[in-house]
Parts: sequence; structure tokens; C-alpha cells
Amino acid sequence: MCIGLDTDPAKIPTHLKEFDDPVFEFNRQIIDATHDLAVAYKPNIAFYESLGLKGWSSLVKTIRYLDKYKDSVFTIADAKRGDIGNTSERYAAAFFGYPPHGLGFDSITVAPYMGHDSVKPFLKFKEKWTILLALTSNAGAFDFQNKKFENGKMLFEEVLEKSKEWGTPENLMYVIGATKAEMLTRVREIVPDSFLLVPGVGAQGGGLEEVTKYGMNKDCGLLVNSSRGIIYAGNGEDFALKAREQAQILQAQMEGELREKQIV
Amino acid sequence: MCIGLDTDPAKIPTHLKEFDDPVFEFNRQIIDATHDLAVAYKPNIAFYESLGLKGWSSLVKTIRYLDKYKDSVFTIADAKRGDIGNTSERYAAAFFGYPPHGLGFDSITVAPYMGHDSVKPFLKFKEKWTILLALTSNAGAFDFQNKKFENGKMLFEEVLEKSKEWGTPENLMYVIGATKAEMLTRVREIVPDSFLLVPGVGAQGGGLEEVTKYGMNKDCGLLVNSSRGIIYAGNGEDFALKAREQAQILQAQMEGELREKQIV
Repeated sequence: MCIGLDTDPAKIPTHLKEFDDPVFEFNRQIIDATHDLAVAYKPNIAFYESLGLKGWSSLVKTIRYLDKYKDSVFTIADAKRGDIGNTSERYAAAFFGYPPHGLGFDSITVAPYMGHDSVKPFLKFKEKWTILLALTSNAGAFDFQNKKFENGKMLFEEVLEKSKEWGTPENLMYVIGATKAEMLTRVREIVPDSFLLVPGVGAQGGGLEEVTKYGMNKDCGLLVNSSRGIIYAGNGEDFALKAREQAQILQAQMEGELREKQIV
Repeated sequence: MCIGLDTDPAKIPTHLKEFDDPVFEFNRQIIDATHDLAVAYKPNIAFYESLGLKGWSSLVKTIRYLDKYKDSVFTIADAKRGDIGNTSERYAAAFFGYPPHGLGFDSITVAPYMGHDSVKPFLKFKEKWTILLALTSNAGAFDFQNKKFENGKMLFEEVLEKSKEWGTPENLMYVIGATKAEMLTRVREIVPDSFLLVPGVGAQGGGLEEVTKYGMNKDCGLLVNSSRGIIYAGNGEDFALKAREQAQILQAQMEGELREKQIV
């Protein structure tokens, strides 16, 4: 399970406003309360950028705080970056590089529209993961991602195919927002061994059962994300405890699925 | 003419290192030396993000400094953002919103892969421009953008077509990195009235003549960008003067093209 840190100052408990940095304090308490249940944390970079310099500072503090649990948790910068080669190199340095300049994330989400030279600079970093957008969970995904090319393949299938020339299951994962059996089956036909980051379980209404049934591989191969469903479970002084309770429910469901498939 | 501020601390003149913020000082001098020749400035956000908090601070200072010339210059955040609706809203707030949190840019480059709900939050801002990636100038552009769908249209054509349902030539422009006649002609068939941001003239080797011949419309409709060719024209204490000289050469070429087409 991955917990999305889409931290919105307007949604966090009011008592946190007394802190110097309410966004960081919220994240810190959520992380402390859930780190034994989560395998990954995914700050959504837009939420921090929209707060200006102070937001970037909250992001730095959050990723540095996650260092405390780095033996057991994986960090994902949900940034959806992608640009020409020399510019993607800069984004890779920003998110994969280490302090004082870089944020030192383990992985980053990357958009494929600009093709190979927009993705490869991220793949060059050792022991880091690039998480390529393939099939997303939003309404607009149907505008282009599901359209068929002349060769009969849909754009997202072409992205999966092509990207196998750029990276391996050891440095490349995919965002797959699908919860439909048919799509998950197609994805697994193309990338049987890769990890999939699946957003939209919980608040976005995705079905965990379908996802595990058609998206799992022999090693599990799934990182299921929940953001709002967990972090905003409570709104009082006990918000972190409420988040933990929701995380436990989701984690138990996932463990059940894993046991059923005899993976754990 | 648009000047790209792809400011790299490793490439700026050494005497600037004495300043508190060498990146901002470089930008400030470039802007002062060229503002009467340029119609737009385009900071490349990756270059600032890769410098961490200090980089974000240099970006804030640069965009605030550009306020000085806001009656005559247009500002472009070259950020290539795009995410699900509620997240794109945050990116729009980050780049279009005003201080203390927002950067207050006039426009931003946006990636289309995630479809309508990833783009529309940017279009909601009044008197702001969304610059959608359509056909980019990099090698990887051929991986997906030029591939034909079953309906005979290439992905970038489909992006142009579809986006006309989302915005108008008054709030939507396009990144068109093409310098080939055939592609520019196709673009103009689909979006005759829209502004096109054309990167890659100069350092990236694009040909200005082809671009103006096939890409111009009756009001010009082109914003031609040059980054490295101008800002790194010199490396000494007179770097800003050298940048001005290069900007003058390019600006004169462009004016020549406009006169030939009887636009000015």
C-alpha cells in the first residue's frame, strides 16, 4: 500500500495551524501513524508547488523526515514530469539528486508524450525508479490513451511496448489507473514482470478485487495508492489515528488478497 | 521573439558567482539588455527546480523582476505540467495565481497525455494562456506524436483537433517544434488562428524561413523561441551585451520575414 500525501492546507485539522509549518506537521503525524502499514509514500508535488517557496520547503522537510523510515518505505515524487533530454536531466537531478539541491526521492512519475529522450535521463540514475504514465484513471484518459493506432494497438499499449526498449522491470514501473479486467489483462500481457502503481483505490472508487485479480503477477507487482481516503479520514486532533484506522482496513484487504493468491 | 531563460549555474559567467543569487543576477542582466527586442521570456522551470529551494527563490525573483516590463513582455512558465483535474488545479494555482503563493505567469506549457480534465483547470483562469504540447522538436517526438491512429490522423493532429473543444485561440496556444513544411501546413489546417510557440530556432537548429513561410497566419501567429543561442552568446563581463547582439540579429531576421509577408 502506498499513501498519497496530497496535503491541502484547507483540509487539514485547524489545530495544526498553530505550527510553523502545518503542512509538514500534518505529514509528519500521518507518516508516524502509518509507516508500519505502508510500503510507500507519494507526495503529490502540485500541492506543494501551489504554496510557493513555503510549499517547497514543506516538501523538503517531508522527504527528509521520510529518511527516518528509509529501510522500510519507498518514496514516490508524483510529479508527472517530462521534457526534452537536457531538461529532463534537470528534473531528474531535482527529484533523484541528493541534498542540498536534490530532493532524493526513490522514484518519480513521468509523462511519455515526448518520447524516449524525455524519459531516458530519469532511467540513467542508479537504484532509482521511473514510473511512466501509461493508462491513467481520470476521465480525460479516454481522449488519447485508449485510441487505437493503425497497428491495432492503443496509445497506452504502444507506450508500454516502446518503453521496454528504454528500461527494464528493475528501473521502470507504470501508472495503471485501470480497474477493468480487460485493460489490466492487456497490460499484463505486455509487461508481465513490471510493478504497477495503481491510483484511485478508495476515494477515486477503484475496486481492489478486480485490480488484484487481473493486475497481480507472481510477486504481487502492484503498488496500490490511496490518498484522500486515508489522510483525510479524520479532521480532529485524532486525525492521525483515524488515518491509521483507514490504512489498517485497506492494508487488511490487501493482505487478504495476497493470501488468497498465496503470495504471503 | 521569445527568450528562453534556461539558466544553468555551470554556464553563467564566473564573475556572477560573487552575487548572492547568481542565477537571478544573470537573468536580470539578460532581461535588462533585451527587453526591447523580446516579446516574451520563458523560464524553463526544470533548471530552477534542480537547484532546490534556492532555485525556486531565483525563479520567484525573476518573474517578479519581469513585472517591471509587464506592459510589453509576456511570460511563459515552461513547465510541461498535466495531471488529473484536482491536481492540475494546483499547478494552475502555482503558476497563474499571484503572490505570495502563486508565481503570476501569463502562460504555462501543458502536456496533453491525460486529456481534457488535465488541461481545463488551466483554461479556467481569465486572461491567462495555456500552451499545449502538440508536436515537439526533440528526437523522441517521433515515438508517439507522429504515429497514425485508425482514423488516419497522427497523435499530434488528434491533440490539436480535440483541444479545440476545450479552449479557443484566445486562451490556448500550441508548442509546435516542427520546421518541416508538410507538418506546419497540417498544423495550420487544423488551427489556422492560434498562436504557435516554436522552440528550437537557433541552438536547436530550426530554420526560421520554413517556419515563417508555412507557420505564419495573417496576424503572424508565431512566437519563436531561442534560449542558449542568445543567453550564452558571451561568457565574459559583457555577456548581456553579447546576448543583446544575438537577439538583435534574430529579431532583425524575424522582422525581415514579417515585412516580406507584409505583416508589419
